[in-house]
Amino acid sequence: MIMKKIYLDHVATNPLLPEVLDAMLPYLKEDYGNPLSVYEYGMKAKTAIEDAREKVAGLVNAKPAEIIFTASGAEANNFALRGIALAKQNEGKHVLVSRMEHHSVLNSARFLEKSGFAVTYLPVDKKGFVDPETVKKSITKETVLISVTHASSEVGTIEPIKEIVKVAKEKNIVVHTDAVATTGNIPVDVKALGVDLLSMAAHQFYGPKGAAALYVRQGLRIVPLIYGGIQESGRRAGTENVPAIVGMGKAAEIARAALKTRMDYLMPMRDRIIDAMSGVERVYLTGDREQRLPGHASFCVEYIEGEAMLLLLAAKGIFSASGSACSSKALKASPVLLSMGISSSLAQGSIVFSLGMDNTAEDVDYLVNEFPAVIKRLREISPYAQGWGDREEGGEQCTVKE
Amino acid sequence: MIMKKIYLDHVATNPLLPEVLDAMLPYLKEDYGNPLSVYEYGMKAKTAIEDAREKVAGLVNAKPAEIIFTASGAEANNFALRGIALAKQNEGKHVLVSRMEHHSVLNSARFLEKSGFAVTYLPVDKKGFVDPETVKKSITKETVLISVTHASSEVGTIEPIKEIVKVAKEKNIVVHTDAVATTGNIPVDVKALGVDLLSMAAHQFYGPKGAAALYVRQGLRIVPLIYGGIQESGRRAGTENVPAIVGMGKAAEIARAALKTRMDYLMPMRDRIIDAMSGVERVYLTGDREQRLPGHASFCVEYIEGEAMLLLLAAKGIFSASGSACSSKALKASPVLLSMGISSSLAQGSIVFSLGMDNTAEDVDYLVNEFPAVIKRLREISPYAQGWGDREEGGEQCTVKE
Repeated sequence: MIMKKIYLDHVATNPLLPEVLDAMLPYLKEDYGNPLSVYEYGMKAKTAIEDAREKVAGLVNAKPAEIIFTASGAEANNFALRGIALAKQNEGKHVLVSRMEHHSVLNSARFLEKSGFAVTYLPVDKKGFVDPETVKKSITKETVLISVTHASSEVGTIEPIKEIVKVAKEKNIVVHTDAVATTGNIPVDVKALGVDLLSMAAHQFYGPKGAAALYVRQGLRIVPLIYGGIQESGRRAGTENVPAIVGMGKAAEIARAALKTRMDYLMPMRDRIIDAMSGVERVYLTGDREQRLPGHASFCVEYIEGEAMLLLLAAKGIFSASGSACSSKALKASPVLLSMGISSSLAQGSIVFSLGMDNTAEDVDYLVNEFPAVIKRLREISPYAQGWGDREEGGEQCTVKE
Repeated sequence: MIMKKIYLDHVATNPLLPEVLDAMLPYLKEDYGNPLSVYEYGMKAKTAIEDAREKVAGLVNAKPAEIIFTASGAEANNFALRGIALAKQNEGKHVLVSRMEHHSVLNSARFLEKSGFAVTYLPVDKKGFVDPETVKKSITKETVLISVTHASSEVGTIEPIKEIVKVAKEKNIVVHTDAVATTGNIPVDVKALGVDLLSMAAHQFYGPKGAAALYVRQGLRIVPLIYGGIQESGRRAGTENVPAIVGMGKAAEIARAALKTRMDYLMPMRDRIIDAMSGVERVYLTGDREQRLPGHASFCVEYIEGEAMLLLLAAKGIFSASGSACSSKALKASPVLLSMGISSSLAQGSIVFSLGMDNTAEDVDYLVNEFPAVIKRLREISPYAQGWGDREEGGEQCTVKE
């Protein structure tokens, strides 16, 4: 019997498209020049990077000069928060971030606190939405930056960025969005969103690890995170990772053309998982039912630990995540789930299935067949599940059972 | 006629070894997991990274836990300077860096100045050496960090790091060395050198772009440059660039075994270039004759601009650099050369030939035959070269003609 292998953790990372690897290979072989060199090897590398920049810009409706390549989404987020805070510190020292943010935003905000900034952590509702009205009320005369994720990879909720930008622009405040989970997966248009900065990462849309970017609106001054040579117009130093950047460009070009096809392919599979799980007792969808990432189905399963589910599912060849990839090994209840008012015990039972283009309807059949059995088995051996009729905590956060 | 292509800019970047690419390919294809994931895809990636860490540690005689992967040498340098300065700011706010440093060190130092640190820029002698006695005299009660490059990629001079460390340790001061140009090319042993921090980059020893590392001595606290998830023990966030890290490990393993062979192959070719050029009028070797990188031959050619030489050499299929890759496009006289007391007009005539394992004795024959002809031709059309008998500036920095 061949062991099934169903990868359902596309928010953690994605396989590289073969076309993307093909585009990268020349730059891993004969075209190895440093883009700063003036001779043909250098010029070829430089041209390849500028071509990639154009394609990445095209994916998010930006100008090429507005794209700064980085090595990771985390670097782009650090760069955005700290670069803008430093550039604007004479105008004010107050920053707003949501409680739904990725660690790279939250921990950058904490770094800013240590550097003398005040940070307001915006609350979210039980579906994970940041309320633009709350943003409005949290703005002070000192506020210089608002950072709200485009979508949380943990609960899939797509935030009302456009409305948040509207509120921010009344006060002329810079807005950053962490669009690492959305770029290449749903339409992301910097002009339509109105944001000043936007982070993205290639490996989230079938591009390579090691290439990411920060969109910085033309005319907006940002202080570098990495100092050195004149790469990226002096805004991000370090010898360019040419093959990865080329791969990001290719992946962006493909994503732009395939966006609708991908969404149309993923959403019905996602909905099938959510529908199937709504029939399982004390399993709660996390995040919003409609405004969510196309391939994203996340739940809290009462009386069970996420880790145990992951292991049993993995034994059945289903690879998924509990909380975000960056926090799952930290073994803490997810701050994102807690921020949504989910109790810490229920948050322990978090599980995220994220679909990709390599998944099929059969994969979903298998999952919706096996997952309830895994839950049943774990509850049979769980001491917490014994008298569950007496326990009500967590039930109120349920969205599937509403 | 097939056009010759002789790549003599290995300090800018290097071709990837085929064995290194082979080691990377599985991680660009089927083994695409995120190292933080708990299932087999993740574990395979995690194991690959730890294996690479061991190999990189082995190359510089460190413990695996002392290696933090970064995306570039520039990032490693920024991380070292700013991470230690922040960690130690309560002990003192004074930093020493040499004038021979790469932009990523110099500009990090300037950033520290803006953040309230005092920085002393250590002078160098005409061969590019930092004098340990000068380091000693520059130390104050406030000094918390000394950063001196292991070797400048512009002039090839290998600095007396061991002696500088000795002076620093008398006062218990942390020492960082930028060993990007040396690691994998000459013996680099963190214990023998005695340094607390050391930067390296894979593409400098036939590994991939996008992978680099900072050695941080066990027990030394450093503040992260990039905040986020728990990667690299919480010291450097961002989804790991698994293929590139694997490639760096493989390149480190090969470099460790091949180090002596490589040096023995490169040094005679380097010496042949230097010897041949010593016969050409008003061409001056920059840097030391003996204590220099094995494949590195750098000169200042009087009355000629580096850019013009590069272009004419490129037309003959010889690809070289003027100044560092990171500054050559900035079209300024190299601060490194100026710091050695070379006049700004002579510094304009800088040229660097850096050999690699893909070069042959025939390449060197061709170079030493063609280069003097290029010089002759350019001098014939140079207005500065007309009355050169009357001009003496620059002559004193000559080392070849001494």
